[in-house]
Amino acid sequence: MIALDAMGGDKAPDVVVEGLAMARVRHPEARFVLFGDRARLEPLLAAHPALAGVATIHHTDLAVSADEKPGQALRRGKGTSMWLAIESVRDGTAQAAVSAGNTGALMAISKFLLRTSPGIDRPAIASFFPTMRGESVMLDLGANVDCNARNLVQFAVMGAAFARTCLGLLKPTVALLNIGTEEVKGNEAIKGAHALLKEADGPFEFIGYIEGNGIGAGEADVIVADGFAGNIALKTAEGTARQIASYLAGAFRRSLITKIAYLLARPALMSLRDRLDPQRYNGGVFLGLGGLVVKSHGGTNATGFAAAITLAVNLAAGDLVNRISADLEGLGDVPEVQASPT
Amino acid sequence: MIALDAMGGDKAPDVVVEGLAMARVRHPEARFVLFGDRARLEPLLAAHPALAGVATIHHTDLAVSADEKPGQALRRGKGTSMWLAIESVRDGTAQAAVSAGNTGALMAISKFLLRTSPGIDRPAIASFFPTMRGESVMLDLGANVDCNARNLVQFAVMGAAFARTCLGLLKPTVALLNIGTEEVKGNEAIKGAHALLKEADGPFEFIGYIEGNGIGAGEADVIVADGFAGNIALKTAEGTARQIASYLAGAFRRSLITKIAYLLARPALMSLRDRLDPQRYNGGVFLGLGGLVVKSHGGTNATGFAAAITLAVNLAAGDLVNRISADLEGLGDVPEVQASPT
Repeated sequence: MIALDAMGGDKAPDVVVEGLAMARVRHPEARFVLFGDRARLEPLLAAHPALAGVATIHHTDLAVSADEKPGQALRRGKGTSMWLAIESVRDGTAQAAVSAGNTGALMAISKFLLRTSPGIDRPAIASFFPTMRGESVMLDLGANVDCNARNLVQFAVMGAAFARTCLGLLKPTVALLNIGTEEVKGNEAIKGAHALLKEADGPFEFIGYIEGNGIGAGEADVIVADGFAGNIALKTAEGTARQIASYLAGAFRRSLITKIAYLLARPALMSLRDRLDPQRYNGGVFLGLGGLVVKSHGGTNATGFAAAITLAVNLAAGDLVNRISADLEGLGDVPEVQASPT
Repeated sequence: MIALDAMGGDKAPDVVVEGLAMARVRHPEARFVLFGDRARLEPLLAAHPALAGVATIHHTDLAVSADEKPGQALRRGKGTSMWLAIESVRDGTAQAAVSAGNTGALMAISKFLLRTSPGIDRPAIASFFPTMRGESVMLDLGANVDCNARNLVQFAVMGAAFARTCLGLLKPTVALLNIGTEEVKGNEAIKGAHALLKEADGPFEFIGYIEGNGIGAGEADVIVADGFAGNIALKTAEGTARQIASYLAGAFRRSLITKIAYLLARPALMSLRDRLDPQRYNGGVFLGLGGLVVKSHGGTNATGFAAAITLAVNLAAGDLVNRISADLEGLGDVPEVQASPT
């Protein structure tokens, strides 16, 4: 069973039900429970007869709003569609929850209800994205602005488990995002994590530092960064892709000849567009909690929400939470490191 | 006069002289002095008769090597082509120096010989790059891994002066790179800089925070970040551009029809390629020193080195060093801020 926060996101609940209808085709065996306003959800579900018997509604009038602060959401969030969805994961009714709601609130409620996994100090947000060699995983994407070496090592373990589960890699390569590839570069946290990971013997291969231009080149399967650098890198890549798409559109509009060229190349360009479509890679996974939560972009469309559902289904099937715990145990104690921010 | 470190960079001195020959056409009034090995430089210069009377050679046998540590370069660098080029700026013989050598050594020697400008705690590296709206400036690109609020405010002033000089903007917009646009986001240094810049009354318009995807969109003329985030953003953008170019090349190779489309669209695509060519934007400027130093990529080609020379010529003509000092004075004292790394 996958729990869906039907009232989270800019275009909820419509996009949630549309996305579910798309995802259902890919996962005929999966079952879903929609938390939200029954009066609004019933007519939407009725429009998709294929969802009958696959999705049930759990009614609630309450929802977390987009501008709610994490602290407010914790105090007042009980009984909201977001809260109930995560609660169903805690209770074991659902194997994963998906929400397009407020990220801060979702993380706060998830930490409160699901608790941090044993051996993990702080959860992180991970996502995968296209590279020249295939797909890679990056984390943290914004949950932790400041990180110490120990946090980064734990991110490495969690990211590697994610890559094994979702990308089917047996021993993914792991790199630390840095501003140079020499060992002397970077801040104390990164240098400390480098020293620890060099000695680590986990189900991944630590390959050292990677620079920003190595991300798109696919130099590593898993890229580890603090939430500040990771978020900047991911969003800069998105922005650059949009910038180049806009240049390209302009180039093809230049003359009658370039317009003809566009028509001829259209199928190839469309498949390229699909490959880079951010909706296809929608879904940030909260790693390091006692249950699975997938965060969809708030402004996503149905294709994007369906991608987030697929991610949740795959992670639940891959038993990611237990895999992370087992990998951490195998790694032994990660020592506390001095001289790095807490 | 512009001083050139003729022995710095992977393909020195050949690329230096080739680049100079290209730049000379754009700047017929400028004069150059090449620091380096006369025996190697003379035949290269002889191949470009147009350089006679425009460029002189200042011989030295010594050069800083690519793997020299900054401290070593300071102790042993005296008399090298890099050192002499910067020394000529300090002595007022040259108005700017250009080097494709070792960045760490270049910054260390520049700080030692040129000193930090009054009112500046730390120099920064700035560069400009293409956006959907035109061109923007970003700094710091790697000189300072950790920054406090005061450093970031000074970067804002220096970056704005750079944009006024090089992009011809009267009152450039300035933004802080962050992981969200709400005032509560980010680390202490960024929040502190935000509070200070909101009150600042300089020759720029502070527009608050910008996220990674706002860089390529051209949301701000000047983007201010610490050297870690700035470097990650710049290199990630470069990497994404290369990734998409590779996808595009693949898309056009798919079939005979797409190959015909490529031929038809070729002129438009070539102008797009030129627009994004990293060589065109080669040249990081060291801001905040008592003289002008431009760092070229070590692996640049002649076009790239010519771009770095053009940057140096323009900055010297725009009297950037004095402009920064005047702007800082106009801003008044930037208070020391607590609770931020030093």
